[in-house]
Amino acid sequence: MTKTILLNNRPKGKPTVSNFEFVSDDTELKVGEGEILLEAAYVSVDPYLRGRMSDAKSYVPPFELNKPVQSGVVAKVVASKNKNFAEGDYVSGLLSWKTQQISTGEGLLKVDGDKAPLSTYLGVLGMTGLTAYLGLNEIGKPKAGETIVVSGAAGAVGSVVGQIAKILGLHVIGIAGTDEKIEMLKSKFGFDAGINYNTSKDINADIKALAPNGVDIYFDNVGGPISDAVLFNINRFARMIICGAISVYNETELPKSVSVQPFLVKNSALMQGFIVSNYAEKFPEAMKHLSGWLAEGKLTYTETIVDGFDNIPNAFIDLFEGKNKGKMIVKI
Amino acid sequence: MTKTILLNNRPKGKPTVSNFEFVSDDTELKVGEGEILLEAAYVSVDPYLRGRMSDAKSYVPPFELNKPVQSGVVAKVVASKNKNFAEGDYVSGLLSWKTQQISTGEGLLKVDGDKAPLSTYLGVLGMTGLTAYLGLNEIGKPKAGETIVVSGAAGAVGSVVGQIAKILGLHVIGIAGTDEKIEMLKSKFGFDAGINYNTSKDINADIKALAPNGVDIYFDNVGGPISDAVLFNINRFARMIICGAISVYNETELPKSVSVQPFLVKNSALMQGFIVSNYAEKFPEAMKHLSGWLAEGKLTYTETIVDGFDNIPNAFIDLFEGKNKGKMIVKI
Repeated sequence: MTKTILLNNRPKGKPTVSNFEFVSDDTELKVGEGEILLEAAYVSVDPYLRGRMSDAKSYVPPFELNKPVQSGVVAKVVASKNKNFAEGDYVSGLLSWKTQQISTGEGLLKVDGDKAPLSTYLGVLGMTGLTAYLGLNEIGKPKAGETIVVSGAAGAVGSVVGQIAKILGLHVIGIAGTDEKIEMLKSKFGFDAGINYNTSKDINADIKALAPNGVDIYFDNVGGPISDAVLFNINRFARMIICGAISVYNETELPKSVSVQPFLVKNSALMQGFIVSNYAEKFPEAMKHLSGWLAEGKLTYTETIVDGFDNIPNAFIDLFEGKNKGKMIVKI
Repeated sequence: MTKTILLNNRPKGKPTVSNFEFVSDDTELKVGEGEILLEAAYVSVDPYLRGRMSDAKSYVPPFELNKPVQSGVVAKVVASKNKNFAEGDYVSGLLSWKTQQISTGEGLLKVDGDKAPLSTYLGVLGMTGLTAYLGLNEIGKPKAGETIVVSGAAGAVGSVVGQIAKILGLHVIGIAGTDEKIEMLKSKFGFDAGINYNTSKDINADIKALAPNGVDIYFDNVGGPISDAVLFNINRFARMIICGAISVYNETELPKSVSVQPFLVKNSALMQGFIVSNYAEKFPEAMKHLSGWLAEGKLTYTETIVDGFDNIPNAFIDLFEGKNKGKMIVKI
């Protein structure tokens, strides 16, 4: 039996389980010439999927209604008529939210569970790690001694950004939403300091206190008022890496913020939005560094692993409540 | 007699004549060894000076109270004890709002009134032209066939940006505040189309109609609601050159705008603030192109020339009413 999760209707504001529909099908999946049969092992849920659930213009087309949702998946090859894949191989790629599916293998990478846990290919050795590494380096152009602020710092991307920044010799300040997360940033990921945006009385003042020489790089996962506060502290030639804006993804009215233009002019500052695939030609170089640092123990990670295919929608929804620590993954 | 204009008190909101004080001094200015005596010929008034009249942190220190205001000035050397300058030479540089002043010559460039009118060294062959050329090329990286929107298009920088963009083969849309200015953009400066923001019912819709394939480059002189409208029309990998934010320079409360971060992420778009001195090493290359195009008649300009030293404050204030067409200059 194959279970599938369809997008039933488009979320208005925060997504709910009623946006999704579960369907089951008993038809046996047949493997054609050049094809493989995949069984999902780990499914990644990510904030950016919220954008694809709307029908607004974006860098990737929106999900179609009544079609399966797709995200990063690690899957096991359980049957193969494709010479590039053998039964028992594991692959990683953009796949449907299905317990089983047929693929031509196109766009899938073989991954090795002996070199690193399979789930890491959705996290620190997958799009998450690549996003952190390439956003920070290609846009941020970090220099030792500079100060970086990371928002969404306890999230999958943010926690890797902070660690890479420490490896590169920066002063690293993370912003997250609970004292427990702030503690984790410092004790587990080596951040120099953290700000709890839920208990801070004045985020701007807190940044000023922790970064008295100003902020050179801002890795922005959240947008909204937290990013407004950072603006007041940027240095000349600051680089703001705009990776996500989770704080406004669920807004139903057009969000307003402090006007950024005067800050950009005054400081000759940069804001650059990106998605990781813009830098696809740098993936091998980035993977070399990420897997090297992971093997040397310089890079660690946190996963929130949720059990069971049926919990994929809830795990996705929980992202917007900040219930994850690090990468949110569903184990099938 | 030397007349001087001092900053008497800092403007709150829109500047007024009461922010300035005129003083006269009958003491004869003495030229020391290595010095020159300068007589102001043309004084540039520019929106960015508003920033220096506040005491907020910025890329240049604020003007001091009870000290002369400074801006770009073309002056005549009327006495010289400096071997690099002869009596009768004209120079251009950052000088005080004084009818006469002593200088060491440091930072001054000799300019040639036979090659181009002296006032152009404050405009199309001065900081204005350099700002247009370098902002457009260094940040915008224009490619023939792309679409550019220019705000403040009838202003000194904007009108040069549009012309250079046309020379480079772009589709050029200007935004300005009167029908007369829009007409000038098209007939005199060769813009393809214009939008009058004062009479437009929906700037976003007007841009969409004039740029059905979207906007690749935005040269932003104004900020505020006009820039918000452009955001809705940017293409993937759009470049927004943030040159000024005149619409908010006089705001006394912190201005709010549409949140830019979601647009930047969705489109992998760039916003980069700058001042022309960031690209000082490119000045010779830029000047070569600008003076070449001017000589070939490919580049034209408009000046609003106001007469008389005493009118400098009023000319400056009029910038914020959009009373200038092209570069605003005071002839002494």
